[in-house]
Amino acid sequence: MIYLDNSATTYPKPQSVVQAMGQAVVRYGANPGRGGFAMSVLTGQAVYQCRRDVAALFGAPGPECVVFGANCTGALNLVIKGTLSAGDHVVVSDLEHNAVMRPLEALKSKGVAYSVAKVVPGDNDATLDAFRQAMNPKTKLLVCTQASNVFGVRVPVERLAALCHQYDAKICVDAAQSAGVVPINITESGIDYLCCAGHKGLYGPMGVGILVLRNPGDKLGTLIEGGTGTQSKSLLQPDDPPERYEAGTINVPGIIGLWAGVRFVSGKGPENIYREEMGKAAYLHRALSGIKKVRLYTSEPKAPWYVPVVSFNVGDIPSEEVGARLAGRGIAVRCGLHCAPCAHQKFGTEENGTVRASVSVFTRRQELDALAMAVSKM
Amino acid sequence: MIYLDNSATTYPKPQSVVQAMGQAVVRYGANPGRGGFAMSVLTGQAVYQCRRDVAALFGAPGPECVVFGANCTGALNLVIKGTLSAGDHVVVSDLEHNAVMRPLEALKSKGVAYSVAKVVPGDNDATLDAFRQAMNPKTKLLVCTQASNVFGVRVPVERLAALCHQYDAKICVDAAQSAGVVPINITESGIDYLCCAGHKGLYGPMGVGILVLRNPGDKLGTLIEGGTGTQSKSLLQPDDPPERYEAGTINVPGIIGLWAGVRFVSGKGPENIYREEMGKAAYLHRALSGIKKVRLYTSEPKAPWYVPVVSFNVGDIPSEEVGARLAGRGIAVRCGLHCAPCAHQKFGTEENGTVRASVSVFTRRQELDALAMAVSKM
Repeated sequence: MIYLDNSATTYPKPQSVVQAMGQAVVRYGANPGRGGFAMSVLTGQAVYQCRRDVAALFGAPGPECVVFGANCTGALNLVIKGTLSAGDHVVVSDLEHNAVMRPLEALKSKGVAYSVAKVVPGDNDATLDAFRQAMNPKTKLLVCTQASNVFGVRVPVERLAALCHQYDAKICVDAAQSAGVVPINITESGIDYLCCAGHKGLYGPMGVGILVLRNPGDKLGTLIEGGTGTQSKSLLQPDDPPERYEAGTINVPGIIGLWAGVRFVSGKGPENIYREEMGKAAYLHRALSGIKKVRLYTSEPKAPWYVPVVSFNVGDIPSEEVGARLAGRGIAVRCGLHCAPCAHQKFGTEENGTVRASVSVFTRRQELDALAMAVSKM
Repeated sequence: MIYLDNSATTYPKPQSVVQAMGQAVVRYGANPGRGGFAMSVLTGQAVYQCRRDVAALFGAPGPECVVFGANCTGALNLVIKGTLSAGDHVVVSDLEHNAVMRPLEALKSKGVAYSVAKVVPGDNDATLDAFRQAMNPKTKLLVCTQASNVFGVRVPVERLAALCHQYDAKICVDAAQSAGVVPINITESGIDYLCCAGHKGLYGPMGVGILVLRNPGDKLGTLIEGGTGTQSKSLLQPDDPPERYEAGTINVPGIIGLWAGVRFVSGKGPENIYREEMGKAAYLHRALSGIKKVRLYTSEPKAPWYVPVVSFNVGDIPSEEVGARLAGRGIAVRCGLHCAPCAHQKFGTEENGTVRASVSVFTRRQELDALAMAVSKM
């Protein structure tokens, strides 16, 4: 298989992650934070070390700022619902995933309003102006993706963070496509809430998402309450992170796998990963742009304007049909609407969707050649 | 290690589960329901087969009735918050875990009230009367554990289901301690919502919880919205289960591991597991009851009144201290309050907590002898 669906989940995983998953249920098999015996303590320490390494990767103050959950969608829901109440206003970009749009749409009935600001690819000043204009005195939160999962377009989240703080609002960044690929430091940039998928650029398994808090004292409302192994006498959810946001038994094998993935990423360095992957994306873009029937939706992906994702269509062939034909040749890409209808509207692809090819550190140029060759024969 | 903390999580896992976890990120490495290529389809099929086997184990109408989430706590929160709104009343038992009590306490501020009914061990008629008296015309839901995680006392949930339906209320059963251990058929018993931990009696890994719906047309409000890979154009969460309740990428390795666990349990048969484990619990109870300083809180665990969990204390030694001494001898038990303050109040152990020993299919009688021997030496 030629796997070019790394924006959906990276594959293959590093060998260290595969091994960690196999060992997790044997070595770290006790429930952490619930027992005082050796294996429970050992498991708790491993989870703590994963928090520490995630905090270091993203420049967070400490391990307590790292909250584990089921996926990036869960982290986004926690921030959105844990900060907003009736009368509040939110600003989002026009590139958002349904993981942001659907919770906001659900909050409409509770009196939360939102405005959409236009991202102008290649012109951060214009993008900043659009967001500034979308804000009003009731704006409490800005939620935006760091990079479009469909078109790879990056959003200047560091500048948006500064803008938010001028207006006394907070910023939540959806880093599903960027964590591990783009260097991120939340303390330096002022990002209040960073939401990450564990199974994409961080090379962990599916099943873990991460919320990174810039300020551990910043208390969000909870979505889920339950046992935390702490303050058991109280019927109220504890105040302190991460336990406050992690009710019930946590995903130990997933966290152990993620830990291996995070060490893999930290070892390489996101800045190197970004450079390497952008080279591959640009290579693919050039190869596709030489094929007559191919329609590309962005200019050649260059740093710092894109993440390594390329969306295209082939003549009038439905994107799903292109995907099926590629699948027939053993090439895995994602087709259709990619759970981001707003982004598709922006680029005029809401009817047919797009064919999306996305690379990882393991993608080889021959694989990209094979994709271009298969497309050219359609 | 002599592991007797199976109520926190079962250990070891069956060899098939260990193998499944190791293979999951290699064989089922694509995001299911998001791609049309072979590995994505294969992964989707495996997830579907797990749903089908879970549905069969619990007598649910079909695979669409099986909703995966992060843990049992998440499933309970989904039911509690997805069914109740201002003015509604709920009845719970006096044995509930914080996974039930904390969400209900959080809902108080939104105008949801709850009453606590007393479970009378050994007298189901009296228990039924207590629940009947706690119900009122506003009672919309009854939430109760099928068995106390601290004392092993079982609650007659099948009879409570019949009671609920007489009064036009629904019943949600917390099967964290009973799923896989006690035979459960939700269609026959009329349990509307069954919430299970994947990592206890079902022998899957930590990180997966299950909500089983008796009626897939029974639409709950959602806690988390986001991408589902279905109806991507819509900003509204889809109506149909399981996608409606599974926003974002699901925990594929966890589900693959759980699938192996469920097949292990189905192969043995919960009725056989129950008989076997109850024999071990009774054996331990008898051994401990022969030690002068030991205080036991229940009579000898017998079918059908208990699940195989034994709680005790040793003289005036704090339960945490007993646990630490046992840990020093390589014996793993759980001590303290077990996240269920109400149950501790009922049995007068809210100050010191209890030492809890819980068995699995892998527990050997020599291990129980070793525990009794270590306790007798204190």
